[in-house]
Amino acid sequence: MPEFFNVLPPDDARELLLSRLTAVLSSETIATEDALERVTAAPVYAPHALPAFRRSTMDGYAVRAADTYGASGSLPAFLQVIGEVPMGQAANVELKTGDAAIVHTGGMIPETADAVVQVEHTQIVGAALHARPPFEIEVMKAVAVGQNVLQVGEDVAEQAEILPAGHILRPQDLGGLLALGITEVSVTRRPRVAILATGDEVVAPDKWAGPGQIRDINSYTTAGLVRQAGGVPVLGGIVPDNFNALQAAAQKALAEADMLVMSAGSSVSVRDMTVEVIEGLGEPGVLLHGVATRPGKPTIVGVVGQKPVIGLPGNPVSAMVQFDMFGTPAIYRLQGVQTPPRRGLVWATLGKNIASESGREDYIPAKLAEGVGGLTAVPVFGKSNLIYTLVNADGLIKVPLNKAGLLAGEQVEVRLF
Amino acid sequence: MPEFFNVLPPDDARELLLSRLTAVLSSETIATEDALERVTAAPVYAPHALPAFRRSTMDGYAVRAADTYGASGSLPAFLQVIGEVPMGQAANVELKTGDAAIVHTGGMIPETADAVVQVEHTQIVGAALHARPPFEIEVMKAVAVGQNVLQVGEDVAEQAEILPAGHILRPQDLGGLLALGITEVSVTRRPRVAILATGDEVVAPDKWAGPGQIRDINSYTTAGLVRQAGGVPVLGGIVPDNFNALQAAAQKALAEADMLVMSAGSSVSVRDMTVEVIEGLGEPGVLLHGVATRPGKPTIVGVVGQKPVIGLPGNPVSAMVQFDMFGTPAIYRLQGVQTPPRRGLVWATLGKNIASESGREDYIPAKLAEGVGGLTAVPVFGKSNLIYTLVNADGLIKVPLNKAGLLAGEQVEVRLF
Repeated sequence: MPEFFNVLPPDDARELLLSRLTAVLSSETIATEDALERVTAAPVYAPHALPAFRRSTMDGYAVRAADTYGASGSLPAFLQVIGEVPMGQAANVELKTGDAAIVHTGGMIPETADAVVQVEHTQIVGAALHARPPFEIEVMKAVAVGQNVLQVGEDVAEQAEILPAGHILRPQDLGGLLALGITEVSVTRRPRVAILATGDEVVAPDKWAGPGQIRDINSYTTAGLVRQAGGVPVLGGIVPDNFNALQAAAQKALAEADMLVMSAGSSVSVRDMTVEVIEGLGEPGVLLHGVATRPGKPTIVGVVGQKPVIGLPGNPVSAMVQFDMFGTPAIYRLQGVQTPPRRGLVWATLGKNIASESGREDYIPAKLAEGVGGLTAVPVFGKSNLIYTLVNADGLIKVPLNKAGLLAGEQVEVRLF
Repeated sequence: MPEFFNVLPPDDARELLLSRLTAVLSSETIATEDALERVTAAPVYAPHALPAFRRSTMDGYAVRAADTYGASGSLPAFLQVIGEVPMGQAANVELKTGDAAIVHTGGMIPETADAVVQVEHTQIVGAALHARPPFEIEVMKAVAVGQNVLQVGEDVAEQAEILPAGHILRPQDLGGLLALGITEVSVTRRPRVAILATGDEVVAPDKWAGPGQIRDINSYTTAGLVRQAGGVPVLGGIVPDNFNALQAAAQKALAEADMLVMSAGSSVSVRDMTVEVIEGLGEPGVLLHGVATRPGKPTIVGVVGQKPVIGLPGNPVSAMVQFDMFGTPAIYRLQGVQTPPRRGLVWATLGKNIASESGREDYIPAKLAEGVGGLTAVPVFGKSNLIYTLVNADGLIKVPLNKAGLLAGEQVEVRLF
């Protein structure tokens, strides 16, 4: 039985895991409309320029800019409005010197025009408010070439890389793809994450928990975190605390998934058993056993082939903090995302002193309160085996590795959780 | 035709809208396992205490604390180990003075014990490493009453309110509910949000966009934001720019949904038409037309009965910023959430000066870069009709209402977007 306790700082530990995950999962092509929060499997290039034609950014008149030079309120330029460009149609109006054409915001600019005069800077000669062309206008302000005109390719040039591989698709990305007629997109398959609970004392949530028994929490908190990172949780149920049962369940679960998480129980013997099970699953096996954090020091992190295998502490708070530290970035990495999204980090003023130990990264559940001076984070002290310390918290305060504590009044980073 | 332009500051405008949304949508009961990111429709109470029995937080021996008083390495207390509490079973061991019982982390404490001695602070007399009871131990460190013991109800007391109504369920909340055997939960129905695009120039993304035509972007960016807020987007397609068509489409869409969003087009005439359509849908109708922000000043916000109706500017950047400002909080409010989640706000050092105008809240797309001094936000300047300014940005810098601009080096709030 490998009985080592290689306690690494959390950043190094995570880097050790991620450095082993060099392959991205296979891809699938899906409708762009359905691709929110999925990850691009390849760079995407613009099939054509956007806009594909010159467009007006104002309601007004398409003109030849030179015809307006020197125009002012006291000395307007007189132009002849010879037609209108209807929305959604080609601009088939040909402007000669001194001509103008009605254009609407977003409408196409005639080929012979090079600027747009805002309607507010004109008036119709003879004052008919809803005149139909032809009619004459006074232009009270000069426009430069290109003014109030979106040029072809001003949004995106033809062939430009519009999205890199490994990009998590946001609402605007879907809009940008669809604007170019890209109605299908190649995305990484969602990682399937097998989750096993262990423990002779653990029963399913729909069971009556008798004396000495507790209901499974970690399978469900882990499943929630898996979903939030874009994975598909595959719950494998509760495995008794014996080597053969755990070994068999782990092998089966890993064969059908891209990643395996075991809630490794709380006692030392169960953790040692989990290490042995992971070692038996294949190479390279256990990468580290123990991380310099609280809660969650006895986390086991391994890789089998290209599949991450994580043994979480049994305490629900430790399990969540540790899954967030290793599991979430691993799920993103399997999808080809180099850096997990930055969502969910806020800064707040610490409301109470926190004691810690240098050389260890601590995560303290905290409640946030909005006040006149901004956000305050008040630690929710509680044992790491109490799930309600997390239910009653808005996030986790991080006490950095090199600090022996934090003082009330300090600015602290809170990870919304 | 109502031709007013009541330009409110954005916070006041949003408050005006939300103050009209006094009813929460109806509820439905679903499996707790499937309730991630849904909103509780009612407070939830603990059906029993958690833990339901006294549990050990350590591997060691359940003892009567008084038997260890004064014990030290040089003067150990001798105790007789008379049995073991197996995991997942009732602690049927009766301790008399001087007795102890093996307990594992998470295991039940015998009724006659009141503390646990960590195994590390004991040694077996006679040194048999895997002795079976009965055997004798030396206790080298005294324990106090309750030490290393989780008390009944220490996590949650029976009948305690564990979650309020209007709470967005996170992974730990699901864990907390399931720990108590609450396998079903009452949540607010997901709001159905009807989305209409308008514009004679707008075609569906799967269509060839000819000269003067553009593909629909706003329906899809809006749908993405609706999903992220917990709503169900219902796309109503593209409506031609005429009053009767828009009126008919809006009536039909609103009848089948809890909220209506119209991409109100870019020209003044289309916006006026949208105002008139909303007024015709029912009381109270349009609440405001115009918000002191850029981009997105000409937003139209209304309520029909208890259903929010929003007319977005046609420019895709404006449409997204404005939907985020009004649509997202309205979707949360319909679900009973008072304050939308704080996720996605970061502070960064501004990389370049930004000019603005006092009395207007500006949102500038920005790219974030991680450096030695922390995050830097570099503005991505671009016209608000260019969707790729948002595709190329990580978030939006907010220039507060009372500022005439921001200086490079200032700390700025960036909304990840």
